[in-house]
Parts: sequence; C-alpha cells; structure tokens
Amino acid sequence: MSDVLARRKRLLGPHVTTFYKEPVHLARGEGVWLWDTDGRKYLDCYNNVPHVGHCHPRVVKAIAKQAATLNTHTRYVHDGILDYGEALTAKFDHDLTSMVMVCSGSEANDVALRMAQAVTGKTGVITTDNTYHGNTSAVSQLNSSKTPIGGFKDHVKRVPAPDNMAPVGGTRAGQAAAFAEAVKSAIAELAASEHGLSALIICPYFANEGFPTLEKGFLDEAVAAVKAAGGIVIADEVQPGFGRIGSHWWGHQKLGFAPDIVTLGKPMANGHPVAATITRPEILTAFQDGFKYFNTFGGNPVSAAAAHAVLNVIEDEGLVANAADVGTYAVAQLKELQTRYDVIADVRGSGLFLGVELWRDGKPATEICTAMIDEMRNRGVLLHSEGRYDNTLKIRPPCAFDRGNADLLVETMNAAFEAVQ
Amino acid sequence: MSDVLARRKRLLGPHVTTFYKEPVHLARGEGVWLWDTDGRKYLDCYNNVPHVGHCHPRVVKAIAKQAATLNTHTRYVHDGILDYGEALTAKFDHDLTSMVMVCSGSEANDVALRMAQAVTGKTGVITTDNTYHGNTSAVSQLNSSKTPIGGFKDHVKRVPAPDNMAPVGGTRAGQAAAFAEAVKSAIAELAASEHGLSALIICPYFANEGFPTLEKGFLDEAVAAVKAAGGIVIADEVQPGFGRIGSHWWGHQKLGFAPDIVTLGKPMANGHPVAATITRPEILTAFQDGFKYFNTFGGNPVSAAAAHAVLNVIEDEGLVANAADVGTYAVAQLKELQTRYDVIADVRGSGLFLGVELWRDGKPATEICTAMIDEMRNRGVLLHSEGRYDNTLKIRPPCAFDRGNADLLVETMNAAFEAVQ
Repeated sequence: MSDVLARRKRLLGPHVTTFYKEPVHLARGEGVWLWDTDGRKYLDCYNNVPHVGHCHPRVVKAIAKQAATLNTHTRYVHDGILDYGEALTAKFDHDLTSMVMVCSGSEANDVALRMAQAVTGKTGVITTDNTYHGNTSAVSQLNSSKTPIGGFKDHVKRVPAPDNMAPVGGTRAGQAAAFAEAVKSAIAELAASEHGLSALIICPYFANEGFPTLEKGFLDEAVAAVKAAGGIVIADEVQPGFGRIGSHWWGHQKLGFAPDIVTLGKPMANGHPVAATITRPEILTAFQDGFKYFNTFGGNPVSAAAAHAVLNVIEDEGLVANAADVGTYAVAQLKELQTRYDVIADVRGSGLFLGVELWRDGKPATEICTAMIDEMRNRGVLLHSEGRYDNTLKIRPPCAFDRGNADLLVETMNAAFEAVQ
Repeated sequence: MSDVLARRKRLLGPHVTTFYKEPVHLARGEGVWLWDTDGRKYLDCYNNVPHVGHCHPRVVKAIAKQAATLNTHTRYVHDGILDYGEALTAKFDHDLTSMVMVCSGSEANDVALRMAQAVTGKTGVITTDNTYHGNTSAVSQLNSSKTPIGGFKDHVKRVPAPDNMAPVGGTRAGQAAAFAEAVKSAIAELAASEHGLSALIICPYFANEGFPTLEKGFLDEAVAAVKAAGGIVIADEVQPGFGRIGSHWWGHQKLGFAPDIVTLGKPMANGHPVAATITRPEILTAFQDGFKYFNTFGGNPVSAAAAHAVLNVIEDEGLVANAADVGTYAVAQLKELQTRYDVIADVRGSGLFLGVELWRDGKPATEICTAMIDEMRNRGVLLHSEGRYDNTLKIRPPCAFDRGNADLLVETMNAAFEAVQ
C-alpha cells in the first residue's frame, strides 16, 4: 500500500484525498459489494454513483454493445439520445421536456447557470451557505468549503442552510418561513446590485447541507419569491435523483415545487461519465440563442445507452420501491440504535439516503464521527460523513441495497459504537 | 429522417446543429468507416475522437472488461489511473509528470486556467482571435465565435492568429516576429490592468485557426516573453495530440517549445468521455493548495482502462508513423489536385490533419467550400470546414487511415470539385 500511495502522490499530487486513515485499495465490485486487492469484502453503504449496483450486468452489456457498434457526437443524427431523452423527460412533470447532455454534474450546473442568465439577462445567484454544486470555475463560486484564489465573487448570495439540530430561525416549525425570509433578503440585495437576480440553485434534498427533515411545501414561499422576482429555480438533483429517496423519482417532487431547470449527474449512468440539464423548451431556446454550446462527448451513443440501461433497470427491478422499503426498515433499526447510544442525536432520511447525526455534550461530535467511519471501514462497511460539522454518518448505498444489507449495516454500527464511544 | 429531426428539435432544441444539408443518420462504425441507417457506407475523413478507429476492438474490450470488474472514483485507491498516468506522462518531456483526470477537454482547460491563477495569483489570459478551447462558462470566454450574454470579460486579450493566406505582419517570413510582438503588447496591456498576466493558452497546431504552416521555433519568442513576464504557457493538445500530426506525439514538440501545462481531450479514449490536465508537480501542488478540486468521474477505472487501451493501440499499431506516412502521401496527391483546380489556394498540414483552402477572385471561397462538404457527403466521404472564413476543407480522419483511403478521398474530391466549381 505504501508504494501505491507514493505513486498516487507523485502522479496526482500531494493533496489528492483518499477516504479513511487506511485507504481502501479496490479491485472488484458487484451489487452492493466491493473487494480490495487482498480479497477482503466490503459492504458499500456510501456510493451513489453505482446507482443500480456495482457493475450491473445490464449496464455493462449496454455499454459494451454500443461501444462495439458506434460512438460519435450529436452533429450526426442517432436514435440513442432521442430514445433515452424521451424516456428520461417522461419522468418529469411541469413541461421539463428538453435537455442538454453533458459529461459531469459540474458541466450540467455550469450550463444551468447560463440558461438562467440567458432568460433573465442577470447574473446574481442565490444558494445556501453550506453547499456544493460542482467544480468548474463558475460553479465552484457556489461552494462554501474553500475560498478560491481571487476570492468569492459578490454575485453569489448565501442563505443559511436548513438544519435539524440548529434550524434556521431557531425552531423546526418556523424554519420554512425563516428560510424564505433569507431568500427574500438575498433577492432584494441582488436587485439592488449590478448583478440582478438570475437564479436560485438548490439541492431539493439539501444533501451537502446534511439533508434535514423537511415537510412538503418547505420551499414554496422561497420559490414563489424567486419566481415573482423574475428569477429561475434550478434543482440540482445530482444526489437525490433517480428514485434514491424512495417516495419519488426526484427531490423536487418530494418537496412539491416546480423547478425551471433540473440538473442530473452521478447516478445517471452508474459511473459512466454522463450528466444532463433538463428544462422547458423556451429556456433551452433562450440558452441556445444566447450561447453557442456544443459538447463533443455529451449524449454520444454509448453514454445514452449506458444511461438508458440504468433507467430500465430502475424500472424493471423496482428500485424506487426498494429504496422506500429498505430505507424505512433501516431508519426503524437506526432509531432503535439511537435508544442505546446517547451520542446519536438524530436519525433521518428518506429512501436509501440516511443520516445518523452525532452530538456529545451539546456539541457536534465530529471526532467520534470520524472515528466511527474508520472503525466501520475496518469492520468491512464503507460509509462517510456529511453536514456542516462533518458529524453526520452519511448512508447512501447503491439502490439494490436490501434488508439483509441493512441488518449488517446496523449490527456493524452497533459494534463500532461500542468500540469508539 | 424528417421524423427523427423533429424529435431532435423537440428534445434538444431548435438550434442544435447537424453537419450537412442532409444530416447523416448513423447506425454503425468500424475503423475509418461509418454506415447510416440505410446501410450506406461513408469514409470518415473528419472525426478525430475515434482516434484509433471507430469501435476499435481492443478499446471496446478494455471498457467492457473494466466496466464488469469495478468502476469507482479516486477517493479509493486503484491501480488503473496510476498505470495509465505513468504511461501517459512518459510521453512528455520537460517534467510534465503530474496530472488531473477529468471528463472533457473543457474541464481540462477550466482546470488549467485555475492552475495558472494559482501559480501567478493573476487572472489575465492571452489567446488568439479565432480560437475555441471549450464550453464551460470560464473557458468559453476564450472563444471568438459568438459573444456570450453579458459580453466578453476584459481579462482576455486576443492576438491575431497566424495564417497562411493572410499572415500576421503581412509575410509568412515575418509572421513569428509579428505574432511575438502582439503577445508582448498583450502582456503589457494585462500588466497595466487589474488582471495581470496569468497565462497564454494556445493550440500548438492552431487547429481552430486553420492550422497554418509554421516552422519549428515559431512560438519561441512569444513563449519566452510570457515566461519572462511570469506567465504560464498552456498548450491545448486536444486536437493535435496523441500522434495525429505524425512527426511527434504532441503539437508543442513539433513547434519545439516547453509548455507548463498541457491539456488533452477528445481522442484520449476513442470517444469515452475522458480528458486530462498534465503539468509539473509544483504547479499541481499550487492548484491543490489554491482550489479544492475533486472530479467524481475523472480517472475512474473504466476511463483509465479506455485511455490506456488507446495509448497501447497507438504504440502497437504504429499509428504515429502511419499518420506521418499516409499524411505525406495524401498531401502529395492533394498538391497534384491543386494543379488542376484554381480554387485550391493552399494545401497544408502534418500527419493526418490536413487542410485544403479555397479562394476565388482574391476572396475566401466559403460558398464553394460549403458546397464541397455537402457534395463529398453525398458521394460518401465525410469531412468539414475550418478557418476564419470556413473556406478550408478540414481533413482529420481516424489515425488508422491508410493510403487506399487517401486515394478514395482524393478521387472523390476530384469528382466533387468537377461538380461544384
């Protein structure tokens, strides 16, 4: 391992991150399982990219078949992107019937921001103060984790992220109204600036914010304020999308609002690099009028085939219903675990996107959370952390996760809490 | 066809471009050949993405095998990216031994610009006045084809692109010195501005500029001026790279200068969405110190396997030497064609990246060029145009192109010129 880490450092730089004190050196994956180079088996409770399971044979077959048949760009006509696009947009309400296919969620959000600019003629963006929407120069201005060289630009206004343990406005009941007030203030600030209001961009599950428990309608007032001010609402569905949350295909459906633009990424093709920006036809037209945009790899026949296979597997294997069933089962067990360990302050989530937040002595228990992650890894279960203080265990497995997998997860967590607390 | 075009328009927007008056509806590809849905066969003289040939079996096999074994991100340790990265960086001189793998050439250039910012603390960029380096918000500021909404930012200074028919400074002999003078003026302008000099970004083959014929050393004075002023030199090798130009693996080697950063894209994995930014270790470290950057799909095991297979095929099939041999053979035939058609003002290129520039009555013959492209398509040979006036036939086939393919290309061009001139 020391040799391979030295090679990584030399080639990929000294600051390239690995998960875990003892990084996992992977060799193979299948379903919800991963194996390292020593043949040790791990239960994957973290990776959302292999949405329908690591190396799903139908996705592999679709990729192999199309790669052997044709792979070229969209300046030639090909049925693959059309068949996929029609199947995908059928999963949306609210006239979201047009799309741009790209290679990463970052590119999808970069396009979405320009769509909003094209419609509004403005550049100001509202987002939360604890978020991540990708890594292009433009999109990374939205992130809150590290100030880039040259600083953050003042066209981005940040509103406090909703939170279960420290709600905006002080109470969970008042959080929606307090959040809406913050958005209204940001709208007013942008309106008074040279930038004007272009868009609100938000993950409708607030995934990077720690996915607090929010009622349907939570965003209604904020969304209405943005729309009333002429702004565009962008739902970044990279994390909650494709049925992971169990109750719905998309996070914005669960919260019950109608975004103007939806962006998709990571799980879309089970790891093949593909992403998309979905919108209404008139917004796509405004974007194409305002910006010349062509993406060489975006929507190529192999990417379309991979993504279409994922869509079909989700349907055929009933993975949305599975996420709902296994997620509910896991939450019940995690809540039972909570009765045994004081450090567990909150258990939450929807479908197969769950969090176990740790506090001790009235403070976020970040160190215990970090210790738990490494202890779980050493016991053969892979998960990681989330939230403003990195004190929430983030459980976000492939959607083929079953009740037996949930049992193993909770049993292992029980033993790990015994060891680290 | 009208049905499929209507579906495209509905799903992908009214302005999504297709090549040719009568778009080609593709079904299958193999080597240098493409077939449409009616079974008609086309000689592909344009596509550089399928660098080692459409659907090359070794690349398909590598993708299928790795997709069935493991596909995950670089926060776990995997040998694939290391094996590939070492093999790739061995192809570079000048200590370009570190890399960031991403999903598109646009992402690669977006990263490169931030690397230059990290090293210099400045943001000003010099590029040519007829170029394209990608489609992210930041990178599209470099493009010259369409003014984006909000206008171009003034941190980009454009210098006149070198040209065979209308050389910078008036003569081909004086073009290098005139180009260097323009770069020095841009450096001075940026130094006097709030932006300062960050980078010169240039395609070392000036591919989008129409790939004029340039002597080794053409950029020496300009590059020296940028380096003397503390700037970073970025070579965008997305088009000339991977041996296409026949004489060398990379365009900057042909011109004989040492870039600080090299970006790679389209041909890197024969169409699988992968790209990279290659640089010296200290520049990568400065970038990682200055920006938090992680790319979920970048450098995943399947992308690394696809790219590694391409590298191996280039070596094992001797495609660099093939590009040199077939390119030289094709240029000789195209020059013979030039003696027969007055409209051919210039034949140029290196390896399998060739141009036939058309002028009539002392003016760029854009209409004849457009007519030629459609005529060639109707005769079963796919190519397209390039240059400031879109009056240069751009010939840039997969690198498995052989002398027989070149014969067919030139014979077809002969017949097409008879028909359209």
